[in-house]
Amino acid sequence: MDTNLLGTQVIAQIGIVVRDIEKTSQAYADFFGVDNPGWSLTAAADAAQTEYRGQRTEARAKLAFFRLGSLQLELIEPDEHPSTWREYLDEHGEGPHHIAFIIEGMKEKVMTLERSRMPLLQKGEYTGGRYAYIDALKPLKMIIELLENDR
Amino acid sequence: MDTNLLGTQVIAQIGIVVRDIEKTSQAYADFFGVDNPGWSLTAAADAAQTEYRGQRTEARAKLAFFRLGSLQLELIEPDEHPSTWREYLDEHGEGPHHIAFIIEGMKEKVMTLERSRMPLLQKGEYTGGRYAYIDALKPLKMIIELLENDR
Repeated sequence: MDTNLLGTQVIAQIGIVVRDIEKTSQAYADFFGVDNPGWSLTAAADAAQTEYRGQRTEARAKLAFFRLGSLQLELIEPDEHPSTWREYLDEHGEGPHHIAFIIEGMKEKVMTLERSRMPLLQKGEYTGGRYAYIDALKPLKMIIELLENDR
Repeated sequence: MDTNLLGTQVIAQIGIVVRDIEKTSQAYADFFGVDNPGWSLTAAADAAQTEYRGQRTEARAKLAFFRLGSLQLELIEPDEHPSTWREYLDEHGEGPHHIAFIIEGMKEKVMTLERSRMPLLQKGEYTGGRYAYIDALKPLKMIIELLENDR
């Protein structure tokens, strides 16, 4: 096969699930000698329209972002509602959760991946765009996130 | 603290431990629409001088590398001898093992990190350089790899 399924090879982000975002973001700030970026809360369910494994969920998360070279490091502290973040934290503990790619044409990309046996795990909206987490654990040993930003 | 402990913020590599490097490297090649890069075996113990948790080890691994934007993706299939790769695979299963940074002054950097309660986990030599894996699981929820290349 010589078709790139995503239309990009550029990893834009690494996401790490954590139990205490304030503590871990301070540890990263100390490690890299940068300011603590603080955290923000993902939008509430009505705005985010979050779906996890095909079901609407109230799940929200605290997010903190570090810019490291061309890459963004995202720390994620999930709440107790069902989500890929919560599930990963409960099953694997704290650590790397996903790598993310900025794509165009979310619906088509998600359909293409589902046809390639990489099913949609979670999706939602954020201000200026939308995301989808893809279960690529079997072929790629990773969760892949697609990010589509409105122009 | 406003000192960068590594002297860099640029993530150079993401490393993923796998059980079957041929199968997983083909899955990545299909996913990104690129050629399968094949794999190479790390140097034997005498050349690599591998130490894991302070003890010499015979451990070797098959490695495959993909270039993704500014980042290198490394797949690692460890053998059965003691190593951070083998331990991670046995404890966590397949998945992301480390993020790596290219640094200068390996001894000083390792000492600095050990003083910051991030102990050395494994080290070894490769043609043209050397590596060290640092246990940063407690503060950063990740294993950090330092890579030092000779000029």
